[in-house]
Amino acid sequence: MNKQIQVTIWNEYRHELSNEVVKGIYPKGMHQAIADGISCDQFAIQTATLDEPEHGLTEEKLKNTDVLIWWGHMAHGDVQDEIVERVQKRVLEGMGLIVLHSGHFSKIFKKLMGTSCDLKWRESGDKERLWVVSPGHPIVQGIGEYFELEQEEMYGEHFDIPEPDELVLVSWFEGGEVFRSGCCYKRGLGKIFYFRPGHETFPTYYNENVLRVIANAVHWAAPTGDTPPRYGHFIPSLEPIKEKG
Amino acid sequence: MNKQIQVTIWNEYRHELSNEVVKGIYPKGMHQAIADGISCDQFAIQTATLDEPEHGLTEEKLKNTDVLIWWGHMAHGDVQDEIVERVQKRVLEGMGLIVLHSGHFSKIFKKLMGTSCDLKWRESGDKERLWVVSPGHPIVQGIGEYFELEQEEMYGEHFDIPEPDELVLVSWFEGGEVFRSGCCYKRGLGKIFYFRPGHETFPTYYNENVLRVIANAVHWAAPTGDTPPRYGHFIPSLEPIKEKG
Amino acid sequence: MNKQIQVTIWNEYRHELSNEVVKGIYPKGMHQAIADGISCDQFAIQTATLDEPEHGLTEEKLKNTDVLIWWGHMAHGDVQDEIVERVQKRVLEGMGLIVLHSGHFSKIFKKLMGTSCDLKWRESGDKERLWVVSPGHPIVQGIGEYFELEQEEMYGEHFDIPEPDELVLVSWFEGGEVFRSGCCYKRGLGKIFYFRPGHETFPTYYNENVLRVIANAVHWAAPTGDTPPRYGHFIPSLEPIKEKG
Amino acid sequence: MNKQIQVTIWNEYRHELSNEVVKGIYPKGMHQAIADGISCDQFAIQTATLDEPEHGLTEEKLKNTDVLIWWGHMAHGDVQDEIVERVQKRVLEGMGLIVLHSGHFSKIFKKLMGTSCDLKWRESGDKERLWVVSPGHPIVQGIGEYFELEQEEMYGEHFDIPEPDELVLVSWFEGGEVFRSGCCYKRGLGKIFYFRPGHETFPTYYNENVLRVIANAVHWAAPTGDTPPRYGHFIPSLEPIKEKG
Repeated sequence: MNKQIQVTIWNEYRHELSNEVVKGIYPKGMHQAIADGISCDQFAIQTATLDEPEHGLTEEKLKNTDVLIWWGHMAHGDVQDEIVERVQKRVLEGMGLIVLHSGHFSKIFKKLMGTSCDLKWRESGDKERLWVVSPGHPIVQGIGEYFELEQEEMYGEHFDIPEPDELVLVSWFEGGEVFRSGCCYKRGLGKIFYFRPGHETFPTYYNENVLRVIANAVHWAAPTGDTPPRYGHFIPSLEPIKEKG
Repeated sequence: MNKQIQVTIWNEYRHELSNEVVKGIYPKGMHQAIADGISCDQFAIQTATLDEPEHGLTEEKLKNTDVLIWWGHMAHGDVQDEIVERVQKRVLEGMGLIVLHSGHFSKIFKKLMGTSCDLKWRESGDKERLWVVSPGHPIVQGIGEYFELEQEEMYGEHFDIPEPDELVLVSWFEGGEVFRSGCCYKRGLGKIFYFRPGHETFPTYYNENVLRVIANAVHWAAPTGDTPPRYGHFIPSLEPIKEKG
Repeated sequence: MNKQIQVTIWNEYRHELSNEVVKGIYPKGMHQAIADGISCDQFAIQTATLDEPEHGLTEEKLKNTDVLIWWGHMAHGDVQDEIVERVQKRVLEGMGLIVLHSGHFSKIFKKLMGTSCDLKWRESGDKERLWVVSPGHPIVQGIGEYFELEQEEMYGEHFDIPEPDELVLVSWFEGGEVFRSGCCYKRGLGKIFYFRPGHETFPTYYNENVLRVIANAVHWAAPTGDTPPRYGHFIPSLEPIKEKG
Repeated sequence: MNKQIQVTIWNEYRHELSNEVVKGIYPKGMHQAIADGISCDQFAIQTATLDEPEHGLTEEKLKNTDVLIWWGHMAHGDVQDEIVERVQKRVLEGMGLIVLHSGHFSKIFKKLMGTSCDLKWRESGDKERLWVVSPGHPIVQGIGEYFELEQEEMYGEHFDIPEPDELVLVSWFEGGEVFRSGCCYKRGLGKIFYFRPGHETFPTYYNENVLRVIANAVHWAAPTGDTPPRYGHFIPSLEPIKEKG
């Protein structure tokens, strides 16, 4: 059997504790809904939340994480810079990172993108239809041509991100907007996937297609296990260098 | 006549003051050598250096800069974070940025790339031959198929950057390495060009081809002048949204 | 004054002669509407149509064309392969190419893309809203955040094209689809822009924003004038090669 | 156990029959050397050669091929256009394609790229050092930072290809050139990898690193098995369309 992929699902886990609607939908937290939804033999899943020590992301835990999933929204500012740098370092070493929905404004995503990651939004329960623009991509395996979410928060362009290395999904919103909803990046040895859906007041993380995309993305983002290259001063040269004047 | 492009050349300007060899090559500083070398009717050129107040990069000056050129090396850590954020903001608004040589490790470049920007290096006076891999690109206009620098510091792969939006130049080094030497990016509305050559102990910024690439890059990176898009909350929707359950 | 950009607008020019509705909208042909609409001091504009000798695209005319605009639909198969190869050769040498609407299925576009260029379509007069996803790009200069066309033919994803080098516009359609509507490519030294709008039964080529995008694209696609690189056998080597066993 | 990947290795197989040096190195043909070299439980490998009926690429065989490997050189022109179109169709449907060395000038590669695919070359037995520029990419898993080939034909830039979707390897040549040696593309649902090494007069396809890259590329290029999207006329619309004037 192949080695299991070590998945850590990180959730801010504040809305679920403070808002009755959200608690009603996700009584054990969104992280647990996602963990249950993507559970399979190939994944060994752990969770971590903001209010645990070190936000649940100790050196040890990150070292043993192949793919980190990230959901945050109301408390991005409470995430310690030191932990953000720790996560970035692990991504550059090869750890996969899946950033969900309002995680677009997380410190870690902005740090890895280098842009504001800003966008347009509206909490009006728009119907969202996510179209596959890169069929055959492993992240959309089994999805078909599109899938729909009856109600979601609207996110609209312009989305201030670097041009994705690969654009996989584009959303149509009932209210008239479009959005690049599935975006692939590579930073260092790590693969990053931004996936738009998942507003806390809708049961999005019970949707079969949403869960399938997340599970596919875990497979896609899992590291090869190669050692990062060496950097720094390299002498002597591989080939002889002529003496010059 | 078209409006002139407002160019600001920023230089750390420390090596030239502390090292006799560098002073001998660039008595007025590398910023001045570049300014003289790319001077033309189409550019209005200013310079700025690390040890000026606010590193010479006041809000006012940046506001009036179309393209910023950046050379730094021994004192990256002395650049204040606040100024780095100011520069980043202007890039996202549309200001072009040309990062030279050891600027690969500057705070601003790392912030915009999201990676370590690390690489291999060796100060052995390798011959460098820069090959054009995107002929017809405006940045290499007039360069021909390649150009050579008799002696330069070696920079070797892996260069830990995001995959460039466009790769324009690849270097061959005498000692056996290759390097992606001309890399184009867009972040927000701003265009960014990383250009490898320019070690302080060699007269690289007097080389006609190097100067031509920098001047071409200024034209390429100049902003269109468009206003950045609006972000945030957008109600009402452009199209009607159905009431749902 | 800068040299004028030599623009050739190629139109199949069959619908306008055979269909009363189209004739009513474009009495002199779509090519003439576009020519009138983008006319300015910086462009020297010619037109060419399918039923002229050599489709109006003689060696001489192409040699003197900086940017070629292409509209075709009902008679793609009537374009001679020899002329298609002639156009491809000129693109690889540096001529810009702007492919409009149903030109997605032209021989020249398919030849340059290497894919089927197929898509979904529906002639139901959908409202189309074209969103800028790359603000600050020269092709959308002056457009703002989006523009609308009250009625257009719908084109929907998946659009079977290579991932664009730069994606500039994404369309929202009233009927529920999205489409990558402004796509930039480089092939050889030539820049290519695919721009979606322009169904023959709607007055799309009188729309100010559509015309502005086309005019902007002409500026963007104009060649640098550099000579293509040399290919083939290169001896002797630039550097000495060691004798081996 | 996972389903095996169906690999077909296509070889022109003419040099080996007509040239004593090549025959000496590859007595059973390069296709057989590659087949032996990448053989493993996960692959079911077949071969096919130019002079078999239909070049060994019947509809049936291609239908049952997940990844096709292609080596051709002296007889590109003898490959029938009909077979080339058949292969292209399968790539667009999802079949992976690995194009080796002089296959850069094959009809199928040029058709899928849309460019001349021309380059510089020299048969002088240059040392080649292939540097990994995308560490962590599955195609270079286990390769380390670079690998060397003591003698190879030189291929030099400019290589007239579309900007790769991902650039994985860049070659340094003893004689002074560089080359983009490992290039990833997606066309339709199919993944394409161009891999430079493999001149017929050198024992390159016995090199462990070369074989490892090819085997890795087979895994990378294997299709997801998804059905291609539907194209054409789509009525009725997914959402209601307002009657207009």
